[in-house]
Amino acid sequence: MHVVVLAGGIGGARFLLGVRELGFDVTAVVNTGDDVTMHGLRICPDLDSVMYTLGGGADTERGWGRAGESWVIKEELAAYGAEPTWFGLGDKDVATHLVRTRMLAAGNPLSTVVAALCDRWQPGIRMLPMSDERVETHVVTEGRAIHFQEWWVRHRGRVPAERFVFTGAAEAKPAAGVLDAIASADLILLAPSNPVVSIAPILAVPGIREALVDASAPVIGVSPIIGGAPVRGMADRCLATIGVEVSAAGVGALYGSELLDGWLVDDSDADTAVEGVPVRSRPLWMTDTAATAGIVREAVDLAGLS
Amino acid sequence: MHVVVLAGGIGGARFLLGVRELGFDVTAVVNTGDDVTMHGLRICPDLDSVMYTLGGGADTERGWGRAGESWVIKEELAAYGAEPTWFGLGDKDVATHLVRTRMLAAGNPLSTVVAALCDRWQPGIRMLPMSDERVETHVVTEGRAIHFQEWWVRHRGRVPAERFVFTGAAEAKPAAGVLDAIASADLILLAPSNPVVSIAPILAVPGIREALVDASAPVIGVSPIIGGAPVRGMADRCLATIGVEVSAAGVGALYGSELLDGWLVDDSDADTAVEGVPVRSRPLWMTDTAATAGIVREAVDLAGLS
Repeated sequence: MHVVVLAGGIGGARFLLGVRELGFDVTAVVNTGDDVTMHGLRICPDLDSVMYTLGGGADTERGWGRAGESWVIKEELAAYGAEPTWFGLGDKDVATHLVRTRMLAAGNPLSTVVAALCDRWQPGIRMLPMSDERVETHVVTEGRAIHFQEWWVRHRGRVPAERFVFTGAAEAKPAAGVLDAIASADLILLAPSNPVVSIAPILAVPGIREALVDASAPVIGVSPIIGGAPVRGMADRCLATIGVEVSAAGVGALYGSELLDGWLVDDSDADTAVEGVPVRSRPLWMTDTAATAGIVREAVDLAGLS
Repeated sequence: MHVVVLAGGIGGARFLLGVRELGFDVTAVVNTGDDVTMHGLRICPDLDSVMYTLGGGADTERGWGRAGESWVIKEELAAYGAEPTWFGLGDKDVATHLVRTRMLAAGNPLSTVVAALCDRWQPGIRMLPMSDERVETHVVTEGRAIHFQEWWVRHRGRVPAERFVFTGAAEAKPAAGVLDAIASADLILLAPSNPVVSIAPILAVPGIREALVDASAPVIGVSPIIGGAPVRGMADRCLATIGVEVSAAGVGALYGSELLDGWLVDDSDADTAVEGVPVRSRPLWMTDTAATAGIVREAVDLAGLS
């Protein structure tokens, strides 16, 4: 069974561990809206989170970056007064960024670069960026737009956001393989990633949302909100910004019945209703891979494919 | 007294420690022919050797790179199969390369980048690259040309070299400040650097050799050969390649009376004669800064400036 998963960073990565566990043929379409160029390095946080996590190289305690990371480069850049200093640039991570930056500069599309990096990490799934074009999520705050990373990492999301802009999305195309994967999928899953800054940028690439709606495969979403709070990250701040209730019902309605063929929520949100969408509840805490695989199995069942 | 020193890497850096010790106003014109782009990083080995050495950050035991260096990036790049793997790319060093590469990409000339890096290192002298343009020393070997670094670092100079080519030199201009420094110098010194691949590339930049010949200041050279062998490095292989005898007399004649107003050799080469050039001998081992300062003092005396 070919399962396509739309995913953001660490939440998406953990979800994908559960999907992979069930032995499916998996294609992950990963958000690249967080991507940013710093110190001349092209950085793809969500792609790397997925790659490191599925490749066994992630720091699971810190929740991002590489296990056994060191910070020499970061200290040295600060000693040179090179800005920005607020971004966590680990030494091992820098090597990944160097390989990627060099390959991109040589003219390779991002999807080719991802495949080359995965030659090392062997994530056991096919990873695709949502687009080979540059799409960057910016946050309009206090009258100016800053990169999502600046809002998220530097300001911890505490600067009031007015709205999110997916710069470049309107002109972007889905990366090579994305539309084919969606068209040939038996099941499509929306990972419990941030709906506003992880899943929405993917849906903002022209053609992807349409392909999902047109797909013969059912689309099942897994709620990133449990009991009115995000499982991790700052989805609550992001949802509030776009005027969506921080609840499983709010996110389900945001995706809507055009997109969703099923909405999986936590037992604590068992009373959730989304117009035109079958809702099912079960425990949604991804405490370990076995628990996550159980969530995925439920999504498969909700899709009528078990 | 304004002293201009033409210098290569580590030998030039150690010599400059001695020049600085005497309290002169020093401008170093540094070879950039060794510069190379690897993994997308612009690397300037000689400029960095001088900067780190005079800034107190060099690994004096290893003879190149930073003290307390770590090698995470190098190992990671190798894990990705990213070539080349033979170049010693330390983590601290990479931070320097990142700052430089980013500043160059933003349109800054190399001389501006060097000044910015020196804001941190405070070398106590003015450092200038020989040119802001890209000049790279290539080695013609077995019918093909390879970058000097590949010949030097990867092959340890053991692949027979037919000749050296300073790619880009003919079209290069002296970096901002070089010709003014030479014109305003009271004394010009040729450091005991490799005459073939450190000093010759500087002289190959159109205008520099002419400026030295025309300068009102005397030009004093310090022999990099002691008793028929290079003090360090592989000057012997380089000299043999261009058909010059590996001796103080051979190098003195290579520079010649048009350029030199004095030639300082080691006591073991006291019988050295160079046509048209006053020769003086004294111990030339740069065992420490005090010994090196003694060499410089002798050069000042040979120039009639003491």
